[in-house]
Amino acid sequence: MGDREVQKTVYVGTFVQSKSLQELDICEKGAVGVDENGRIAFTARSVDHLETVLKEHEGWSGAKVIKGQENGFFFPGFIDTHIHAPQYPNAGIFGKSTLLDWLNTYTFPTETSFSSLSKARLIYNRVVRRTLSHGTTTAAYYATIHVASTNLLASICLSNGQRAFIGRVCMDADLSPPTYRDASAADSIASTLAVINHIRQLDPHGTLIAPIITPRFAPSCTAHALSLLGELQREHNILAQTHISENPSEVALVASLFPDAPSYAAVYDAAGLLNPRTILAHAVHMTPDETALVRDRGAKVSHCPVSNSALTSGVAPVRALLDHGIDVGLGTDVSGGYSPSVLEAARQTVLVSRLRSVIVAADREREQREKKREEEEKAGEGETDGKDDAEHAKLSTEEALYLATRGGAQVVGLADRIGAFEVGMEWDAQMIGLGPLVGGENPGQDGIEYTETVDAESAEKVEASPVDIFGWETWAERVDKWVFNGDDRNTLAVWVKGRLVHKREGVKV
Amino acid sequence: MGDREVQKTVYVGTFVQSKSLQELDICEKGAVGVDENGRIAFTARSVDHLETVLKEHEGWSGAKVIKGQENGFFFPGFIDTHIHAPQYPNAGIFGKSTLLDWLNTYTFPTETSFSSLSKARLIYNRVVRRTLSHGTTTAAYYATIHVASTNLLASICLSNGQRAFIGRVCMDADLSPPTYRDASAADSIASTLAVINHIRQLDPHGTLIAPIITPRFAPSCTAHALSLLGELQREHNILAQTHISENPSEVALVASLFPDAPSYAAVYDAAGLLNPRTILAHAVHMTPDETALVRDRGAKVSHCPVSNSALTSGVAPVRALLDHGIDVGLGTDVSGGYSPSVLEAARQTVLVSRLRSVIVAADREREQREKKREEEEKAGEGETDGKDDAEHAKLSTEEALYLATRGGAQVVGLADRIGAFEVGMEWDAQMIGLGPLVGGENPGQDGIEYTETVDAESAEKVEASPVDIFGWETWAERVDKWVFNGDDRNTLAVWVKGRLVHKREGVKV
Repeated sequence: MGDREVQKTVYVGTFVQSKSLQELDICEKGAVGVDENGRIAFTARSVDHLETVLKEHEGWSGAKVIKGQENGFFFPGFIDTHIHAPQYPNAGIFGKSTLLDWLNTYTFPTETSFSSLSKARLIYNRVVRRTLSHGTTTAAYYATIHVASTNLLASICLSNGQRAFIGRVCMDADLSPPTYRDASAADSIASTLAVINHIRQLDPHGTLIAPIITPRFAPSCTAHALSLLGELQREHNILAQTHISENPSEVALVASLFPDAPSYAAVYDAAGLLNPRTILAHAVHMTPDETALVRDRGAKVSHCPVSNSALTSGVAPVRALLDHGIDVGLGTDVSGGYSPSVLEAARQTVLVSRLRSVIVAADREREQREKKREEEEKAGEGETDGKDDAEHAKLSTEEALYLATRGGAQVVGLADRIGAFEVGMEWDAQMIGLGPLVGGENPGQDGIEYTETVDAESAEKVEASPVDIFGWETWAERVDKWVFNGDDRNTLAVWVKGRLVHKREGVKV
Repeated sequence: MGDREVQKTVYVGTFVQSKSLQELDICEKGAVGVDENGRIAFTARSVDHLETVLKEHEGWSGAKVIKGQENGFFFPGFIDTHIHAPQYPNAGIFGKSTLLDWLNTYTFPTETSFSSLSKARLIYNRVVRRTLSHGTTTAAYYATIHVASTNLLASICLSNGQRAFIGRVCMDADLSPPTYRDASAADSIASTLAVINHIRQLDPHGTLIAPIITPRFAPSCTAHALSLLGELQREHNILAQTHISENPSEVALVASLFPDAPSYAAVYDAAGLLNPRTILAHAVHMTPDETALVRDRGAKVSHCPVSNSALTSGVAPVRALLDHGIDVGLGTDVSGGYSPSVLEAARQTVLVSRLRSVIVAADREREQREKKREEEEKAGEGETDGKDDAEHAKLSTEEALYLATRGGAQVVGLADRIGAFEVGMEWDAQMIGLGPLVGGENPGQDGIEYTETVDAESAEKVEASPVDIFGWETWAERVDKWVFNGDDRNTLAVWVKGRLVHKREGVKV
């Protein structure tokens, strides 16, 4: 993996990051200086002569220089706000199941087997290497109920240099299988504490890894365990993560298990678990009251579109959540989601938002029809064009990338440290390369004769990159092409806190 | 590309193909003999000693032997039943547009530029190389209105060895831009004839390439042109392809342009274009009457899920089409669809069928509620569980793969020649490799201690394949993993009619 020391380094080239939810900041001739602590010391734009820039910053003249690809850019590392590390071996295997039968058929048996440390070592190493290769610089992991293998996951993240929140899963309710269940609420707490203490020892200053309180989801936990975990979160002032309203049957189950709670969200709220340091995965089927409660408590949402489609959970109303002012990030939700790639989650965020738009349009049309039928005489009055709402539901590439970076940083409480390239932030970044231009240096798009002929050799180069750039594309269009056809082949190198943690074979950095 | 001569060859290893819509045939120790004409001469199962098999077939003892990957299988080549070759440069670029504005913003300007032969050469070469690398052995291409570059596409497919239907696009109606439009219906016919004649000269016996009648879609064509094209199809007894009911605004546009036609499908039917040799792309919004008409005429449907999501067209009711007995194949619909990969189309077929299920469930629930409200006293009587229909809408991996192979073969009228590995069919195939097992040879799944440790070098091997196989997976699960996380890296080699037409660097065949 090359040297693990961080050397003062200046990154030079094109930089792409989110300026706001709707806008990308594309800086074509930029430079970013990263110090020995992995912190961004300075940034510069319109850099024609790097020497001039370096002279402006004392002590940077001899710094190492890493140049980005001609046909590529530096992009903030992805933040996966919801991923189950032990489920990775099942990625892609889910049949036609939905949440509750999927848990029993695929998930619980696999997680149970993490009592084996050697199995945990194999799988966790692979998950961390695999997600790093996809540009995931920060992950909020669910592990299993096993303390030893959960501690191992923490060590593996630390040794591979991935920023991570490590969650020992708590599940003390009868619903869980007898062989995969906490003995009691007290056991949930004691085991969680053991992991917290281990991680505090491994990384005392929390530079890379941190514990996260992890009640699996309401149906897996007793109310007693939930409130003890809520206390533990307050006491240690750390993040918590759980699931909410992923699937209609799950929502009904929660209602039957917690008959006195006014809603699913209220179950967590009663336990003190609904707060600005809590990540709620899914939030597909929340009622308006729940959405308001989540917003009022400042809890965050992890949107997992790949999983929601695969498990027939539905399409989360992401636009509505954002409009309410709720912070939203993206999660791969491996292995409810089949893909360990946040880029795939971003792509699917855009696509399912289109289908959300179709659903909203159909709903509005129906409402209109019903309204018309009911108040035929008042026709035309008070009618709104449903298309507007439907259009509004669509998320753009820019928005999906925001959720994958800055949004995710908000969700994991690190918005001041990661998710963008700002002075004072840490260098969690990926170097994206889109391959050589197809047909060589084409001068422009339309009406221009291409003089190059395609030789057999260059025709064979399709395998180098899944994205084809012809040369006429704007930077925004290149980013779009990356989002829709790109994959880990385009992630040439990855850094966390200034450290090189992944690079593709043959890439020189 | 290696030698282009076809040598008598025996392929040995695991073979996966569709047995029926619901079932895969997985043959673990198989052998397939392919003769000098690229035809499958024999197949064998449970092959322990290849020599024994070869002795049973006279003249095969000295045949070349190609072994499949240990962790992989031979799979029929994919059939892309709908792809716009000239739009490939725009793959991934579509913003928030829907069909009609997308055409004007992105598509027509790009297609117009194919008056340049050198541009056509660059792009068409790339499209053909790219789709071959994704395992597309047969494609039904839309080209542009330009005869010369359409002829060039035919030559490029032939020289690269891809089986293809080449469609010169006809569009003589006012709706098309003045700079990109046929001068008249007569021009549509004359230009189409010129391409038909050219292709007949290039490949007189239609071994690989064939012309296909291509009215863009009803709004682009006059009724006169449509019926002349219908005549031309009958006269030459060849395939035709067009679009139908992709988008609600398009459906409304057709209704306004053809006020006397009872439906969109009826417009084509009146022109004689609705017949068993016609491919209809999309079919998202057909009425029950149209569906019945399409079924009665025996026309085929190309399902393009990636495009339908990207352009907010909706979710095609594929299960209903299949239940009606309509033949359905998959289309990438580049660049309404962002991906040139049929594997991606298969993946999205499964996913959007889940969202179709969500939509159907919501509809049924609403119907139930309304019914209850209306007939409160008759509660319980005649109620059906909407979940059944919703469940029924889901398509499985097996079904998606059927549509991508045998279904596609039906759609392009070649069900007796391609889409599976049967004696008498032609060897259109891909060799799939899923990479080395993670962690070496793991003996089994649960409860077994893994003795291998993961060294840094093997951890770096993530880039060789996007799919991780651990060794405990059944073949059906390996296929699932391929469908959901696989890509062109897993397509190690591709043959069409027995000829090697693509292989990845370093692969020996």
